[in-house]
Amino acid sequence: MRDFSRDHRWMSINTITLDRQGDLPTILEACVRHQVRAVCPWRHQVQQVGVDRAAKLLRDAGLALSGYCRGGMMVADPAHRQSARDDNRRAVEEAVTLGAPCLVLVAGGLPQFSRPGSAPSKDFAAAREMVAEEIAHLLEFAQAAGMPLAIEPLHPMMAADRSCINTLRQALDLCDRLDPAGDRGLGVAVDVYHTWWDPELAVQIARAGTARLMALHVCDWLVPTTHLLTDRGMMGDGIVDIPLIRGWMETAGYDGPAEIEIFSERWWREPMDKVLSTCIERHKRAV
Amino acid sequence: MRDFSRDHRWMSINTITLDRQGDLPTILEACVRHQVRAVCPWRHQVQQVGVDRAAKLLRDAGLALSGYCRGGMMVADPAHRQSARDDNRRAVEEAVTLGAPCLVLVAGGLPQFSRPGSAPSKDFAAAREMVAEEIAHLLEFAQAAGMPLAIEPLHPMMAADRSCINTLRQALDLCDRLDPAGDRGLGVAVDVYHTWWDPELAVQIARAGTARLMALHVCDWLVPTTHLLTDRGMMGDGIVDIPLIRGWMETAGYDGPAEIEIFSERWWREPMDKVLSTCIERHKRAV
Repeated sequence: MRDFSRDHRWMSINTITLDRQGDLPTILEACVRHQVRAVCPWRHQVQQVGVDRAAKLLRDAGLALSGYCRGGMMVADPAHRQSARDDNRRAVEEAVTLGAPCLVLVAGGLPQFSRPGSAPSKDFAAAREMVAEEIAHLLEFAQAAGMPLAIEPLHPMMAADRSCINTLRQALDLCDRLDPAGDRGLGVAVDVYHTWWDPELAVQIARAGTARLMALHVCDWLVPTTHLLTDRGMMGDGIVDIPLIRGWMETAGYDGPAEIEIFSERWWREPMDKVLSTCIERHKRAV
Repeated sequence: MRDFSRDHRWMSINTITLDRQGDLPTILEACVRHQVRAVCPWRHQVQQVGVDRAAKLLRDAGLALSGYCRGGMMVADPAHRQSARDDNRRAVEEAVTLGAPCLVLVAGGLPQFSRPGSAPSKDFAAAREMVAEEIAHLLEFAQAAGMPLAIEPLHPMMAADRSCINTLRQALDLCDRLDPAGDRGLGVAVDVYHTWWDPELAVQIARAGTARLMALHVCDWLVPTTHLLTDRGMMGDGIVDIPLIRGWMETAGYDGPAEIEIFSERWWREPMDKVLSTCIERHKRAV
């Protein structure tokens, strides 16, 4: 297992972590100031400055990408299905322009939450089948564009409104169905926040293997957790044994960055430099 | 599938649903007033009036039990392990005195939350193994006492602090390990709130079969959910297709009550009679 204690060369910053403190150019400047080598930008931040300018900013800053967040929200009623498809194709194109190694996919939950305005449903089996169909469609397009897709299973508490793909097993079953030979660029993003509870996590990470393991996201689960979306913890402040999970990833062949992605009202209130220096310190001792 | 639309003969009230509105005698009186036929009392409510008086109140009211809530919290450090065992044996004895058909078990999460004062840990594999060992111990005692044990998997958002048993698959794996022939009185309680998200739910309910399916708990999952513990919804107000899950249970042989268990700041503020009449109405059309 790689030694993270001496420097932060393997650290990436998911830019949502600093979403309230500044725009993308400001975030990238701060990352350079802290010798951060890689980032994963979010779509709304990129679109705010324009994708071409964002790509130039990233190049000029010498920052690598660990992914692009995010495509998905693929569950929709018939009236919203085509616009969802178009939206996801644009996300692939943006990821290509930015030079991202993969586009992260958050599948979407029930249609009324995934694509607001869609007719309401309680049918998770249908939602999951639609996700499979839509990823199959998008994969054709993404493969032609040379952009790998990383399905990110989300915590089951987000199954209704964000993603009906909730375990690594499910995500890998989708990969095996749509890319059985593993040569089409379909894989998974493993976020410790979404997966720590899963009794099958070690087994499924081993099953995934090098080619499917496209990203590792880290933060921590706090007890108590006071909000289902925006109370994620800084690594080391919660109950997740992050080095254990990183060890499973590395044993399975993953040698990419550990990407810090923290949705947190608490950390969004802190100055950018304090968040980044804390991330670096915790990356060294708690990841 | 049984027709619930005409009356509420199959409805049971888990008494936590009325926990803030009155003590156990008051709750039982209200249940009788609303022609409720079964309840599942909570331990703190029973202990407040004394288990013998509670048993007499239940008998005098002609109320059946659908279970007794709850034993468990079995994860502890060595200093707290024996007191946890003693506590669970008392729960079995109380369930016998009350005439409950099963004692519901909530396994416990990490030791520092399961049995406060225990040394902190992040080791879920160890916690899960301890749960298996402790259920094995308790099962000896419970079997001798003639009291079935129902393992209730809790939603993964409660894995750290309440239960490290988070899927029906896990609970059934424990049953198969500790009671392979299915003749020792070990089974599961299926709560739609904890299990609706699980892509394996239908398959695992079918696997469980009649003997293992000891209880069905119902409420609803709200979007958004504003609190991890106390924002459960009244049936019909959320996104769970409860009749679908009840259908799976009945196809697998379950013919017991549908027990309404709602932890909700919102419903705890309502008068007892209003909650009960709402439960009855929703039981008829949304369960």
